[in-house]
Amino acid sequence: MSPHTNFDKPMGLSNASQVKIDLGPRSYSIHIGTDYLERAPEMIVEALGRRRCLIVTDSTVQHFYGRRFHDIMTGAGLTRDDPLVMPVGEQTKNFSYLSFLLDNLFMRNIDRNTILVALGGGVIGDLTGFVAAVALRGIDYVQIPTTLLSQVDSAVGGKTAINSPRGKNLIGAFHQPRLVIIDVDTLKTLPVREARAGYAEIIKYGLIGNASFYRWLEVNGPSITAGRKARVEVQVQAIRTSCAAKAWYVMEDERDANRRALLNFGHTFAHAFESITNYDGSLLHGEAVAMGLVKAFQLSERLGHCPHEDVERVEAHLKGMGLPTSLSGRGWPVHPLIAVMFNDKKVMDGELTFVLTRGIGEAFVETRVSTDDVRAVLEMP
Amino acid sequence: MSPHTNFDKPMGLSNASQVKIDLGPRSYSIHIGTDYLERAPEMIVEALGRRRCLIVTDSTVQHFYGRRFHDIMTGAGLTRDDPLVMPVGEQTKNFSYLSFLLDNLFMRNIDRNTILVALGGGVIGDLTGFVAAVALRGIDYVQIPTTLLSQVDSAVGGKTAINSPRGKNLIGAFHQPRLVIIDVDTLKTLPVREARAGYAEIIKYGLIGNASFYRWLEVNGPSITAGRKARVEVQVQAIRTSCAAKAWYVMEDERDANRRALLNFGHTFAHAFESITNYDGSLLHGEAVAMGLVKAFQLSERLGHCPHEDVERVEAHLKGMGLPTSLSGRGWPVHPLIAVMFNDKKVMDGELTFVLTRGIGEAFVETRVSTDDVRAVLEMP
Repeated sequence: MSPHTNFDKPMGLSNASQVKIDLGPRSYSIHIGTDYLERAPEMIVEALGRRRCLIVTDSTVQHFYGRRFHDIMTGAGLTRDDPLVMPVGEQTKNFSYLSFLLDNLFMRNIDRNTILVALGGGVIGDLTGFVAAVALRGIDYVQIPTTLLSQVDSAVGGKTAINSPRGKNLIGAFHQPRLVIIDVDTLKTLPVREARAGYAEIIKYGLIGNASFYRWLEVNGPSITAGRKARVEVQVQAIRTSCAAKAWYVMEDERDANRRALLNFGHTFAHAFESITNYDGSLLHGEAVAMGLVKAFQLSERLGHCPHEDVERVEAHLKGMGLPTSLSGRGWPVHPLIAVMFNDKKVMDGELTFVLTRGIGEAFVETRVSTDDVRAVLEMP
Repeated sequence: MSPHTNFDKPMGLSNASQVKIDLGPRSYSIHIGTDYLERAPEMIVEALGRRRCLIVTDSTVQHFYGRRFHDIMTGAGLTRDDPLVMPVGEQTKNFSYLSFLLDNLFMRNIDRNTILVALGGGVIGDLTGFVAAVALRGIDYVQIPTTLLSQVDSAVGGKTAINSPRGKNLIGAFHQPRLVIIDVDTLKTLPVREARAGYAEIIKYGLIGNASFYRWLEVNGPSITAGRKARVEVQVQAIRTSCAAKAWYVMEDERDANRRALLNFGHTFAHAFESITNYDGSLLHGEAVAMGLVKAFQLSERLGHCPHEDVERVEAHLKGMGLPTSLSGRGWPVHPLIAVMFNDKKVMDGELTFVLTRGIGEAFVETRVSTDDVRAVLEMP
C-alpha cells in the first residue's frame, strides 16, 4: 500500500475499504466503511476469535451511539459487562482515570484473553490503549475511532499515552491495536469544528508527499466535513489514503531515517500554538496544525525552497475549509512561542531541525533553520 | 549458555563471571562479581555510552551503600541528580509511588537518553523497570539487584510491575534492562533470613533440570548464605548458573511450549501460602517457595512419579539451610488454599495443570492433577 496513490487518474470510489498494517506478528487491519458498528462483532470474531470484550467510551459517544453499540455487542454475545463510560475531555488522560479503569477491569476479573474495545476519539483511544498495554502486562485491544482526527491519525502507529502534570503524553507505551474499525457514520454527529480540525491532518498527508491527493482534496474536501451531507465514499477514500500514508511514514526504513519526521510537518509550530493557549480548549489540535502548515510553507518560501503560489494555494484551501490560517488577532507574543519550539526540540545553538517543503507534496527535513527566520515567519500575520 | 552445566566435573571457580542474554536487538549482559559497585560506571559507559543516569533505590540500601554508590556515579560524571530514595517495602509498588517517581523524572527534565539505575531488591527493580517502561514511552534502565532473590530471579525475563489493590503485579510491562550488574558484596549486609529465601529459588533451578547443580548446592549452599563469611566464588557460580538457567527457561521455543512453565515448580503451592498470609510479611516469597518445593515433591511421589528418597533428601537440605519445609504449626485451613490454587489457574472441572517431578532434576508438566491429590498433600504435615 503506497501512500502515493495517483489521484489524478480516474478512480472508482467505494463505500468500504481496508488497509493492512504490516508489522510481522503484530500486523492488523483497518476496516473503513459505513454501518460498521453493526458489523463490528463479526469483524472482531473473525480477527480475534470469540472472546470476552469490555467497552471503554465517553459520555458523548455513549449518548449518540454507545448504547446501541453495547446492545449490538451484547446481542452478539461478545460482552456481558456495562461499558466503562468516561467523562468527555483530555482530563481523563491522567493517573486517576488510568487507576480507575484498571481497578474496574480487575474487579471484573479480566484475564489475558479479555479484549478492550475503545469506542471514541483520540482521548479514549490513547487512554484505553495504555490501559491495555499495562493490564496484566499487556492485553489485546480494538480501536473504533469515532472522530475524523483519530480515524486518520491515532489509529496507526501504536502510540498510547496519558498526560503528566508536566506535559502531554509523557507517560505511555507502544502497543498496537489488534484491529481498527472505522465507521464513517460516526462522523454524522461530529461537530463541524472537530471535523474540520481532523481534516487538517488529512491535508497534511497530501502536502508532505502526494500532490495528486492534495488536488483531489481541493475538490472533495468540503464533502468530507459535511456531516450528514457528506459523501461516504469520499470519506472512505480520504481516510483510507491517510491511514495508508501514515503507515508508510512510520515504517522503519534504514535508507531513510528521516521519513517518520516528515509527519511533523507543521507540527513544531502547532505545538507552540497549543502550548501558549495552555491547552485550554480554545484551539483544537487540528486548528493549530492548519496554522502550523501555513507557517511551514511561509518558512519554506522565505528560505527559497517553495514558490509563493503554493503558499497562497494552501492558505486559500485551508481558509475555504473553515480552518484558521493566520496568527493575526491572536495576540500571541513571539518570544514564548520561540522558547517552546526550542525547548521542544532540545536545540542548543540557535539552529532547529525543521520539516520544510519544496512545494505541495514535497516535504523534506532541514537540519539548520535559524531562530531569526522562524521569528520572522511568526511575526507575519 | 546451557543451564545444564555439569557440576559433577571438577570446575575452576572464579570471582567474576558474565551471562549474555540473547534477545536480538534487546540483548544484554549480566555481570557478576565482587567490588562491582565501584566498576559500575565503566560498565555502564561501555554498554550504553556516556549518558545521564538517575538512581532509584530504597532507604535501607541507601544507608548501607547507596550513598557510596551515588558518590561513585557522581565522581564518574554519570549523574548530577540526588538519588530517588523510596521507603522500604512492597507498598511502594503502587500507583502513588509510580506517579511520584514519574513526576520527579519530568521535573528533572529527563529525555529519551536518560538511564534509570535501579539499585535494590525486587521491589525497586520491578517499580523502576515499570517507570522506565512508561516514561516517554520507554527509556533505558540498568538493574543493580542487591538481594539474592532479585539477583537470581528478577534480573532475567524483563517483567516489570506494580500491584493493584486487587492483586500483585497486575499492572506492568515487559521491558528488558540494558545491563544488569550484580555485586555479590551487597550480600554481606543482607539479613540471613532474606539470603535463605533467595536460596530457595537457586535450589529450584537444580531441582527442575540440573541434578549435578543440586548436588553441588548440597555441599556449597551454606557458603552462599553466610553473609560476610560467604565464599564469593561460590556465590558468583551459583548466581551465574541460576541466571543462565532462567534465561534458558524463558527463551521462546516452538518445540517446547512447556519449558517456561517449569519455572513454576513449587510456585502454585507457594502462591497459595503467600496469599493465605495476606502478604503480611510473616512469610517471605522464598520461604513459601521452599515449602512449595517440598509439597511438589510430595505430590509427585503420591502420584507415583518420584522416589521417596528424593523427597526426603530435598526436605533435609532445605531444612538444613534454615528454610521452612512443613505446614505443621501454621494452622492454615486446607480449603482456602485449594480455592486460591484453583482460582489462580482458572481451572474448571477439578483438574489442575501442575509441575511435577520424576526426581531431583527431572521436572515436567502434568495437565491432569486432581484436587483430591492436592488436598491429600496439603493435609500432610
